[in-house]
This record gives sequence, structure tokens and C-alpha cells, in this order.
Amino acid sequence: MPIYKAPVDDALFLLNDVFHLDHYGNLPGFSDASPDVVDAVLREAAKFSEEVLTPLNRVGDKEGCKWAADGSVSTPTGFKDAYKQIVEGGWIGISVPAEFRGQGLPAALTEIVNEFFCSANMAFAMYPGLTQGAIAALLMHASGELKTKFLPKMVEGVWTGTMNLTEPHCGTDLGLLRSKATKQADGSYKISGTKIFISAGEHDLSENIIHLVLARIEGAPAGTKGITLFLVPKFLVNDDGSLGARNAVSCGSIEEKMGIHGNSTCVMNYDGATGWLIGEENRGLNAMFTMMNEARLGVGVQGLALSEVAYQNAVAYAKERLQGRSISGAKYPDKAADPIIVHPDVRRILMSIRAFNEAARALVMWTALKSDIAHRSEDEKERKSADDHMGLLTPVIKGVLTDSGFANAVLAQQVFGGHGYIAEHGMEQFVRDARIAQIYEGANGIQALDLVGRKLGKDGGRAILAFFNEVQTYLKERVNNDAMNVYLKPLGQSLGHLQQASMWFMQNAMVKPDNAGAGSYDYMHLFGLVALGYMWCRIAEAALAKLPKANGSAARLNAKLVTARFFMERMLPGTATRLARIEAGAGSTMELADDAF
Amino acid sequence: MPIYKAPVDDALFLLNDVFHLDHYGNLPGFSDASPDVVDAVLREAAKFSEEVLTPLNRVGDKEGCKWAADGSVSTPTGFKDAYKQIVEGGWIGISVPAEFRGQGLPAALTEIVNEFFCSANMAFAMYPGLTQGAIAALLMHASGELKTKFLPKMVEGVWTGTMNLTEPHCGTDLGLLRSKATKQADGSYKISGTKIFISAGEHDLSENIIHLVLARIEGAPAGTKGITLFLVPKFLVNDDGSLGARNAVSCGSIEEKMGIHGNSTCVMNYDGATGWLIGEENRGLNAMFTMMNEARLGVGVQGLALSEVAYQNAVAYAKERLQGRSISGAKYPDKAADPIIVHPDVRRILMSIRAFNEAARALVMWTALKSDIAHRSEDEKERKSADDHMGLLTPVIKGVLTDSGFANAVLAQQVFGGHGYIAEHGMEQFVRDARIAQIYEGANGIQALDLVGRKLGKDGGRAILAFFNEVQTYLKERVNNDAMNVYLKPLGQSLGHLQQASMWFMQNAMVKPDNAGAGSYDYMHLFGLVALGYMWCRIAEAALAKLPKANGSAARLNAKLVTARFFMERMLPGTATRLARIEAGAGSTMELADDAF
Repeated sequence: MPIYKAPVDDALFLLNDVFHLDHYGNLPGFSDASPDVVDAVLREAAKFSEEVLTPLNRVGDKEGCKWAADGSVSTPTGFKDAYKQIVEGGWIGISVPAEFRGQGLPAALTEIVNEFFCSANMAFAMYPGLTQGAIAALLMHASGELKTKFLPKMVEGVWTGTMNLTEPHCGTDLGLLRSKATKQADGSYKISGTKIFISAGEHDLSENIIHLVLARIEGAPAGTKGITLFLVPKFLVNDDGSLGARNAVSCGSIEEKMGIHGNSTCVMNYDGATGWLIGEENRGLNAMFTMMNEARLGVGVQGLALSEVAYQNAVAYAKERLQGRSISGAKYPDKAADPIIVHPDVRRILMSIRAFNEAARALVMWTALKSDIAHRSEDEKERKSADDHMGLLTPVIKGVLTDSGFANAVLAQQVFGGHGYIAEHGMEQFVRDARIAQIYEGANGIQALDLVGRKLGKDGGRAILAFFNEVQTYLKERVNNDAMNVYLKPLGQSLGHLQQASMWFMQNAMVKPDNAGAGSYDYMHLFGLVALGYMWCRIAEAALAKLPKANGSAARLNAKLVTARFFMERMLPGTATRLARIEAGAGSTMELADDAF
Repeated sequence: MPIYKAPVDDALFLLNDVFHLDHYGNLPGFSDASPDVVDAVLREAAKFSEEVLTPLNRVGDKEGCKWAADGSVSTPTGFKDAYKQIVEGGWIGISVPAEFRGQGLPAALTEIVNEFFCSANMAFAMYPGLTQGAIAALLMHASGELKTKFLPKMVEGVWTGTMNLTEPHCGTDLGLLRSKATKQADGSYKISGTKIFISAGEHDLSENIIHLVLARIEGAPAGTKGITLFLVPKFLVNDDGSLGARNAVSCGSIEEKMGIHGNSTCVMNYDGATGWLIGEENRGLNAMFTMMNEARLGVGVQGLALSEVAYQNAVAYAKERLQGRSISGAKYPDKAADPIIVHPDVRRILMSIRAFNEAARALVMWTALKSDIAHRSEDEKERKSADDHMGLLTPVIKGVLTDSGFANAVLAQQVFGGHGYIAEHGMEQFVRDARIAQIYEGANGIQALDLVGRKLGKDGGRAILAFFNEVQTYLKERVNNDAMNVYLKPLGQSLGHLQQASMWFMQNAMVKPDNAGAGSYDYMHLFGLVALGYMWCRIAEAALAKLPKANGSAARLNAKLVTARFFMERMLPGTATRLARIEAGAGSTMELADDAF
């Protein structure tokens, strides 16, 4: 049975010592986020994750969701009770404005809480998580009427949300989508079509399900410019807020899949279902992208979450499993053998995962704080620059954190040897669950294309130049800081690789766009390494600053310094290979004729 | 439903044009391996794999094996009939000497055939595969009497074989094992103990199951020097070869696991079961290592096999799935969208897998031919040098081919987007099945330790120096070959990295063994890249030589040249990062106290 202990102390260290939450007091809601409140929220979330969600994780995997011929879907044993506690705890709306019954706390808090929930039980956490995504889109694009009618119940969690994009013949290329919308006399629309891979499309956790659905209004332009976003509730809602008739949307079946068995993945059939316009006609993709950006950050968090829980279990096993002796001589001579944590190759695995987790958590928090600035600051320039950061970092976080999350779950499983392959230890579930995060909300190859094809060149490269500038300034200002040198020097080198790769694209992708496409994936990971390396410098600096006055936490702070060095010595050197691949260009990648495959 | 087409032409190209099977006529059995015979064997194996084994792959995954309270295990629907065809086709004994009813053909042929079988159905292929491993151990170490009594039926496949090493508390560290053996008056032994993770330990495919079991004779020295190998049949065998009484060995349960559901993974209980000594008392580990070496090569082949079949399915999907347009302009303007094979990032995936597969197949074949020399040559020096090669390359093949096999199955799954996560397409099964190959027969971290800790320094580094010498001589002899320069130069550079890493170990691991342990995994992969790069040079050279007289095969040969270039430009540069990690030493990896984790 897998264990989990939410990393509350690490989250608090990041919030307080690295990112100085107390400097953000001018943002609405942040003054409510006093150290006491933050501490209490995180400890409560930790308790719920550890005691309620963790024990349900294997149950959810084993039982899965069950579809019945009447189109209903039942979730695994215990999910209903746990979901009730989500509603009672007000967990969905932590960062939603109070006017819609949220608590208005920083989005950074939501991301930390979501990490805890996902570590404990990813399939379960998707139900509230998707609702948060839908809330974000409605907040940004829906009319006041729709907001008033739907948001409060969604924020409470009494109703859940979904996003309906994919159709059998189209996923990435939404321009091909066929679902139809026909305007009715009363201003509503009739929606028809089939959507697939709809997470939480049908289930027994909430009283109503609010679907956000992309469809094409009759006569709309072809391609992506003729797509509109609609709100389609499972049950129509009367003016007094009570539930009305069942809408013409139903779940045709659920998928048998590799993992996240506790979350229903539905085929949704819309047969003239009643829906309402969100935003403007034919501007649905725009609205959907708001939701996607929030969702993509959230999916990145899933990668981190699974990496963290897999790590914790691997550590516990490595301390307990006795096998062989340390090559430098027995470390536990009183035992039949040494615990395998003494072996360098096991250490290599544990340190690699740990060096990712702590920096990835920082990267998420840094970006979530930018999202708070982008949404709440009164200074337009500050908002714009935070928004640039979000746009640039979101694909990196989604792509890199989920790739690493999966890779780390696999590494952690390896620590268990044969026992990692057996279901009861739960390690293979982490691997299967983590896998989806690389695929959904835009497969990671699409994230790389988004980064290189859209984000790099946007507004004359304003976002990437600002990122370079920030890191360069950081390095310059510390050029005489000897204690930091061991972290700064490798970061400077890898930043150079990233700049060189960016330059290479500028010089070679205009002439031949395939050069960008062929290098985009390596660029995303090169970027990720530099961003994580920058986070390690910030963490190391905060740890060094805190050490002199550290009492009980000295060991934990010192461990951060060692882990930072590990990252610099063992992981950051990967930027050289990424750069070499990028500079190889598209030649051999694209040369073969399609039928030579 | 996944597809599979066995790569017969590629195998023939390697056998004939790269490795010149016709130059080995002096080895026993090779004169029987005329081009006609080889062609016929491979085409027959291909047909059986494609038509019989492939359709059973999903069935095996879905149904799994079933254990009944009487200790019997039934295999999935169709496995029995397919196994009958294994026996009828004589597939197990292709390379076994004729005196034991084998066909005496080169071991290289067995490896190719096993690749086909594993691609089509890995869980199934393990039943005959494990029997081959047991046969190898018996051939090498068993008495004439045991050989005569057991081998012919095993070679025919009427009886299958297993290997029993792992116990609940010990896997890698066999010195801890507790199973007991007590000598009887008639020279047999009574074996007692519990073994776990025993693949094919019980099933309904064969009349008898011959277990090779490690146990400790009463009073034997502690640790690995007190372990003996025994033959323990499920049914005792009478002197006339007929089956006698049921032996006191039974299957207590089977594991619920991540993949290879069609193969039974058994807990085996030995309750005073009758067994016979294989080899000498207390020398069981030695005998087991013979079996392990064969088995490890076979497990490497499993990695390649899954990479190949996953690749083929990804290619088919990439040609068929219409989504988006090529960034350099529509390539199929008559279709609603371009097939995704036009996108550089999809190409990156397909080329990466392909560039691995063809070189990995060459590496297996090269090494299998060395195994033939090691076992069959009359020249002792030749035998010794071939044996050096086997010892050195076996951990590399096991570790690198299975790591890449899994990684490539994941990459191929990614091409399918969301559809890759759904069970019916079969891609997620390849991922789950491929995962075990990194774990069993010695987890890959153990392979790396075997390589660095044992094989590098053995006999004064004779094996690695011979490898360096071979590749260096190859490079030197072609220094003026302009057509080859594009492949040779990168290989030279990466060989330099490998030599530098080897030197670094020599200088730093004596003083501090953890330096070897911390770098061993990267060294194994660095070695793998160089070995695969060398294979690509040999393949490219053979393709260049054949091109002028190529008629129908020109496109296929040209594709090899492009793929070789891709490998050099995109994959081989990884050696620089591996070297940097190795040279970082054990410092930050080992610095944290155990309880800091």
C-alpha cells in the first residue's frame, strides 16, 4: 500500500523564503493570505490528502468507473464520500473571487493544494480540477447572467465542470471539428455531435455537470475561425437555481484505458442539447485557450505530484529493503545486508527525482504567482509582463513537468525491482496514471510547438527576452558571490545554450520552418532545464540566507544545497546535448519520403 | 488491433551483407545455414508470428492467466494451440545440437526468430524463451544422465523450463537465499523453500515443467559460495522417459502485475521436492550465470522486439491520421488535413525509434555470432576473444536495449495522442509489457554494475581494450573514405568519450569505489551509444557497397544511410552528457545522510 506525506514544509519554504509571499500584499486577496491562514490551509489539505485520498487511490485503480446501460456512471467505492469533503472544505474555490463564493486566496495556494490532492489520488483530483478549469473559462468569458446562474454552485463543487473538445477524427487539429450548433429563437442553441475522451463527463459525485463544448454554428467559417464555445448543462437550471429537465446530452460509453481508472473518460453524445453561448460567436478557441492555459499548468502539477509520491515510496522502500553491501564497506553491519539506499545507483535515482521535484515545485509556484499578478495587479505593465511569463512558461511546465513526472515514476518503480511491477505496491499505478499527463491538454509535442512556433516570436520575442534578462541580471548581480558560484556557473553555461538555440531558430527557421519543428521538443526540454536550474539558484540562495539562523531545519536546508549541486552536476549538463540536436536541423529528420517508413 | 510484419529483409541484410554469414562456414552447423535454409526459417517464423501470435497478444493481455485452488494455472484462450505449433515447428531447438534433437543452426537465427515472436506476443514468447535458457544451463553444466533424460523433451518443447532464483526477501543479493536442500541416500536431494516471481512456473501448455532451482545444501557456507543449482521436475520422470509421480512442488498463487498478463508469474512452494544436482555443489551461481547470460541477451531482444512492433504501429497511425497541415505548406491538399507523418516532431519520434531498432538488431546479431564462435570454434583464442565480447556486451545489450525498448514504446504510444492511452489500440500494452524487461534477469542498474564493476577490469581490461581496438582499427582503416566520413567522425568523437570515461574510472574508482557506482549507469548507456554507432557505420558501409548493384532495394538502402545520419546527428551526441555526469563523480550523489531522504 503506497504511502504519502504532503510536503507542507517545502511548500512553506518556497512561499515564504524563496518567493516572499509577504511582498505581494498589494494584490487583492493576498492580505488574507497571512502566514497563519496559509499554514492552516496547507496542513488541512495535507491531512485530507494523506488520510482520505491516499487510501482510495488503489481502490480507484482496481474498481474503476462503471458505466450502465442507462448512461449513468458510478465512481469507485469511497469517492462519493471523499468528494463530499471537497465540497464541505470549499477546496475548489480557494482562489476564486468571493463574489462567486470563493475565498479569493492566491492561485499559488490552489496549485500547492492540487499537487497534494494529485499525489494522493490523481484520478479523484481530476473531478475538482476540471471544475476549476471550467470556472476559469466562465470567469473570463461568460456573460454576467451565466456567471450568476452557474458559477456559485460550481465553485462550491455541488456542480462539476468538463471541457469538450476532442471528436473521434480530431484532437489537436480542432479546425476539423464537426459538432453543430443551431441558434434558437430564445437566444439559446441546440448542440449536436459526438465528443470523446471527456474526463469526468458523467459520474455520480455531483448534482449537475456543466459541460463546456466547442461546436460550429451553422454557416460559420471553416477551420478554427468558425468554432464557438457553449455551456451545456446535464440538467437545465431553472431561474430560481433549482434543477430542471434532463438535457439531451448523454454518456454513450466509457473508455478502457491504461490508468486513471477512477476517473471516467466518456464518449458524450449531444443530440440537440440546449446550450448557451460563452463569449462571442466563432471566438470559441480563444475562450477555450484561457481554460487550457489554467488546465495546462494544472497538468504540469500532476506530473510533479506523481513524481513526488513515487519518490516518497521509493525512499521508504530503499531504506527498508536489505540487499547487498555498500561497495565502500558494510554500512549496517548488524543487519543481514545494507538497505539499498547505500548503493550509488539507487542514490542516483533518488537524487534525480528529488532534484526535479523541489525545483519543479518552485517553478509552479513562481508561475502561479505570476498568474495572480496577471489577474489581480492594478499596474497594466506588471500585468502584461506577468502574462508574458505565463504564456512562455505554461507549455514548458506542461511538457517538461509531465515528461519528467512520468520518467520519475518509472525510475522510482525501478527502485522496487520486481516488486515494482506487482500491482499491490502501487508503483506501477503511478506510472500508468502519470502517462496520461504527457498526452492530454495538448500532447507534449504540441506544447513544444506552441513554445517555439507561437510564444518565442510573439511581440518581437518580448517574453523570452524578459526571461533571459531576468536570469542574466540575477547572475550578474551575484558574480562575486563565492558561496553561490557552484550553482551560478553551470546555470550561466546552460543559459548560454538556450540563448544559442534561440538564436539558431531565428537564423534558420524563417528559411525552413521544419528546422523549428524538428528542434522544438529539445528546445522545450532545454528551456525546462534552464528554468529548473534558475529555481535551484533561488532555492540555494534562500537556504544559504536562512542557514545561520536555522535551528531544527539546518539539515533540511543543507540537503537543499547538496541537491542543488546534484542538479548542476548531473542534470543541467543535458543542455549541451539538447543544443547539439537542435543545431543538427531538420535534414535527416525530414529527408525520407513518407512511404519509406 | 495492433499490426505486425516481421522485418525479414532487414534481418537477411544484416546476416548476409553486414555480417557475412557465409564467412563462418567452418563453424559446426553453419554449413547447414545455407541462404535457402535461413530464408525459409525466417519466413516461416515471420508467418507464424504475424498470423498466429499477433492476434493472440491482446487476448492474452485481457484474459491473463488464471490460478485455481488446486494450484493449476490456465493460460489465455488460444495459447495452447499456438504452443502446439511451437512444438511442431521445432522452434525451441533451432540452435541446439542435433544429438539432443535440435537443428544445430546458428544462435544468431534463434535471436532473430525470438525477436519476431516477442514482437508479436511477448508474454507468449516467454514460455519457449525460458525453456531455451534452461536448456543452455543444462547443456553446459548437467551430467550426461540428466541431459539424456531431460534435454530431448525440453528441446522439442514437450516439457518447458523455468529458473527459480528470487525469494521474498532476496532478489539481487542471492547470498541471502534460504531455500534448503538435503542430500538423500540415492544421490538426489529434497528441496524446500519459497520462490517468487517465477515466470511460467505453472501453466497448461506442456506435459511437464523442469524447474532449475537455487538452494542451499545443509551445512553449506553462508553467502553466495554456498548456493547450489538443482533440477526439480513438476512430475518425476521414470527411467523409460514416461512421467511418474507428482513432485512436491506447487504454485501457491500468481501475481497481479503491470503487464505480460499472458505469462504466469508464480509463487512456487517447494515442500521436500525431489531434485538433482546440476554441476557441482556450492557452485550453483556459476551455473546460473551461464543461463543468465543467455537469458540477458534474450531480454535485450525483448526490448528491441517491443520497440520494433510499437514503431510499426506508430508508423501506420502516422500515415493514416489526418491532423493539421505541414508547416512548410500542405503536403496532401486533396485530403481534409495532412497525415501527421508530415510533422517534424512526429518524424523525430519515428526516426529515433527506427535509428535504434536497426542498429540494435545488428548489435544482437553481432553478439549472437560471437556466442556461436565462443561455443563452437575449434580455435581456443578465437573462443576466448568471442567470450570476452559476450561478457562485455551482454550487460550493455540487456540494459540499453530494454531501457530504449521501453522508452521507444512510450514514444510510439505518444504518436497516437489520446488514442494511445486507450486499451483497444494495443499501444499501452506494449508499454506495460516492455517495462518488465528493464527489471528482470537483473535490474538494469545491476547490469551497469556488472559492466563497470566486473567486466571492465576483468583480465586486465582485455575485453574492453579489444573493443576499443576493433573500433579504432575500423575507423583508421577508413580515414580516407569520404563517403563514410559523415558517420565515422561522430563515432570517433563518441568513442573518445567512452575511452575518457573508462580512464576516469581507472583513475578515480580505486580510491573511491562509489565513483564507479555513481557513474555506472551513464557508462552503460554511453557504451550502448558507441556500440550502436559502430553498428550504424557497419550498416552504412554495407548499404553503400550494395547500392550500385541495387535494383528494387535502392530506396531501402538509401533509407539506411539517412537513418544512420540521423543517429549520428541526433542520438550519438548524448555521449557528451553521459561523460559529464560520470566525471562529476559520486560527491553530491552520496553526500546526504540516509535519514536526510
